[in-house]
Amino acid sequence: MKTRIHVTLKNGVLDPQGKAIHHALESLGFEGVNDVRQGKLIELDLDDSVSDADIEAMCRKLLANMVIENFEIEREAA
Amino acid sequence: MKTRIHVTLKNGVLDPQGKAIHHALESLGFEGVNDVRQGKLIELDLDDSVSDADIEAMCRKLLANMVIENFEIEREAA
Repeated sequence: MKTRIHVTLKNGVLDPQGKAIHHALESLGFEGVNDVRQGKLIELDLDDSVSDADIEAMCRKLLANMVIENFEIEREAA
Repeated sequence: MKTRIHVTLKNGVLDPQGKAIHHALESLGFEGVNDVRQGKLIELDLDDSVSDADIEAMCRKLLANMVIENFEIEREAA
């Protein structure tokens, strides 16, 4: 079963990578871009036996840095 | 309007970062993980005037490396 984890920086945490993308889009001539934030997307292929609580534990222990990042879990139907 | 871009490696492209996460999950004792792939999540805050074609052009020109990566655009309702 496929599961996607979205890891995003918390509000207020500086995002120099996002800023660089923002500037690059502007210098390529794209208009109407107000803000860019870059996060991580982690795709897990898990056995069906893995519970939601296990996935949350993976995020808290390894995948996200809870001090500066939030995560969202998106399980796809098997 | 918020738009999320998911940039993922194409099938067959080696993903050492995903492999490292996979090993780390196993050494933390998590079971049932078959595969891990790491991608990028780019969150854009765009004016409503920006068209879908503009967003696709941003992806093709800057956000994704079309040789090794795929992208998916997910527009959120305003």
